[in-house]
Amino acid sequence: MNRMRLFTPGPTSVPEEVLLEMARPVFHHRTQDYKTLFAAVNKLLQQVLQTANPVVTISGSGTAAYECAMINMIPQGGKVLCLSNGKFAERWVTIAKRNKCQITELKAEYGHAVPPEQVADALSKGTFDAVTLCHSETSACTVNDLQAIAAHVRKTDAILIADGITSVGAIPVKPDEWGVDILVTGSQKALMLPPGLAFLSVSEKARKKMESVTQPNLYLSLPHYLKSLAENDVPWTPAVTLVRGLHKSLELITQEGMENVWKRTAAFARATRSAAAALGLKVFSSNPSDSVTGIHYPAGFDDKTFRGALRKQFNIHIAAGQGSMEGKIFRLSHMGYVDAFDTLGVISAIEIVLKQQGYSFTFGAGVAAAHQELAKLVL
Amino acid sequence: MNRMRLFTPGPTSVPEEVLLEMARPVFHHRTQDYKTLFAAVNKLLQQVLQTANPVVTISGSGTAAYECAMINMIPQGGKVLCLSNGKFAERWVTIAKRNKCQITELKAEYGHAVPPEQVADALSKGTFDAVTLCHSETSACTVNDLQAIAAHVRKTDAILIADGITSVGAIPVKPDEWGVDILVTGSQKALMLPPGLAFLSVSEKARKKMESVTQPNLYLSLPHYLKSLAENDVPWTPAVTLVRGLHKSLELITQEGMENVWKRTAAFARATRSAAAALGLKVFSSNPSDSVTGIHYPAGFDDKTFRGALRKQFNIHIAAGQGSMEGKIFRLSHMGYVDAFDTLGVISAIEIVLKQQGYSFTFGAGVAAAHQELAKLVL
Repeated sequence: MNRMRLFTPGPTSVPEEVLLEMARPVFHHRTQDYKTLFAAVNKLLQQVLQTANPVVTISGSGTAAYECAMINMIPQGGKVLCLSNGKFAERWVTIAKRNKCQITELKAEYGHAVPPEQVADALSKGTFDAVTLCHSETSACTVNDLQAIAAHVRKTDAILIADGITSVGAIPVKPDEWGVDILVTGSQKALMLPPGLAFLSVSEKARKKMESVTQPNLYLSLPHYLKSLAENDVPWTPAVTLVRGLHKSLELITQEGMENVWKRTAAFARATRSAAAALGLKVFSSNPSDSVTGIHYPAGFDDKTFRGALRKQFNIHIAAGQGSMEGKIFRLSHMGYVDAFDTLGVISAIEIVLKQQGYSFTFGAGVAAAHQELAKLVL
Repeated sequence: MNRMRLFTPGPTSVPEEVLLEMARPVFHHRTQDYKTLFAAVNKLLQQVLQTANPVVTISGSGTAAYECAMINMIPQGGKVLCLSNGKFAERWVTIAKRNKCQITELKAEYGHAVPPEQVADALSKGTFDAVTLCHSETSACTVNDLQAIAAHVRKTDAILIADGITSVGAIPVKPDEWGVDILVTGSQKALMLPPGLAFLSVSEKARKKMESVTQPNLYLSLPHYLKSLAENDVPWTPAVTLVRGLHKSLELITQEGMENVWKRTAAFARATRSAAAALGLKVFSSNPSDSVTGIHYPAGFDDKTFRGALRKQFNIHIAAGQGSMEGKIFRLSHMGYVDAFDTLGVISAIEIVLKQQGYSFTFGAGVAAAHQELAKLVL
């Protein structure tokens, strides 16, 4: 009878009151009621995304928002600088290739941030329509220094497009202050909703750039979204129940306050890293993101067996490594609807399974370390 | 304390048990549990869409599915024959224009079907990569003779792409038997779900055509969807809660049986048309669809005032005319989670508001006519 605990870095758990909000009878979207709801949602999105710019809502996955950003910012055959240090960053490259962009790729190994000075160097050697990166690269559990990178990009004409899918609502990200032109995020991470909605904030610089770009896609046409948004309306039928749930989840987030949300997420990540150290396990990444922690398996451990034991015995769901890290690490999310005691619980469960599967360590050391760290939130 | 009754032709009401299904805790989509759910959904979708071909599920609106069909079937600069008799058919033309297709448009006035012999004539005069149409044109409350049109198209190399958004699950549509290559539908109509999912069945002829087409879009790349679907998987994060609700709603539909669903929908449409005749009101369309009925306002009636009165007094939501019929007609859906007594109720409410707003007629004549017609379902 263990409660299901999702520590996967998306989807994350959805608060019960958000689930029930989405279970209310459906209503029509071409109504004043919908416009009123959407107006409230749009204001709250601006608070959570820390921007005064319009935030577009797309019914679709993060990939739809990635594509919307790229195709509306980069003219045919245009130039893009893609910072790449993980599986999601690689998706920018995939989209750019399909659109026959001229791509300059700036690669760092999985688990390392892309050095801002390398970005400055690349920008000094060429002109670009856009620069893309993942702020928090979920696959590699690594955070890039978006603020420092933005400081370089904002001096140029390039549009800075950042994936904030596992940073918005988890770790500090300030697009207006830093100079991020398009910040993409998704519903199923720190925003505590099911998958199905994606978002992008659009700066004035990006809106100007958009005017010079013609692209064929209708569903992902940014001008269509922005024109409707100015009247709190939508160009295509929206996922009404998810938008209604979004209103509730954004209320919960803004009531807690962004600073508090960031503080709590960072504490859970610190507690998890301390626990790993106390258990003699190595944290993956030289620059770990606070939204998701990667931990190396002890030698000889099998990923599927380990995660399967957590799932079957305790209904706890953690994620495998992705890309080149598959089988080598496991990943735990700290985003959204998760609290200190859930975090302590997952460390306890991990210790039990480590012991069951023959790893030698001081049983209880992880829980003790996490408890010490988590208590600092209130003591 | 009137229960909300949605007679809008999408979104339609969602059964309470589907709403509650979607309120269950979210789970991760890269799991065997999701594959098992999706496998069951895919089988049920084939039953409801009456096809042995794969049915692709996209998180997005009907427009996303339209675009997916077109861009994956028509090569750059390719030729398309667009049958056009309403607002939704016009969207095929919009997408084709954005993609610089060579368009031949076959237009009928709103409220009239496109004659199949005109399609045969156009096909005899040129070759086309694809032919597009709306089976049930929701904006004009008009059904096209898809079977007869398909009989002409299947003799050619052209791919027949049909919008079945308000026909699938409402009126008979048999893509395999008739020769419809791509049948598009959406979640928020007869499938009794909130908006947020769209579907397309893909014939072998369409899958072969797809291999000859290269297009840049990633999110709407049909090969990506089909490749994943073969393993009951998804290329991008799906709207998990909606897919879970879909499983429940498809179970409800298939338990009732397609023949019964079609029979009931047709009866509600007949009852509504009889009521209109009894009230001296003219039904819009020379070939009315059974999924949505359009009725002309009496002279001098104001659309917003009329629909507003239904909404404010009775919590009954009907739709305005669209495109060139705006202000001239009102529209009532017969799709999905609606029963005979809801249908009788909406006729009663319409009579009351007609009387309040000064129309002269035999009060009760509409209800009497509808009652007679509806009773035939069981007597």
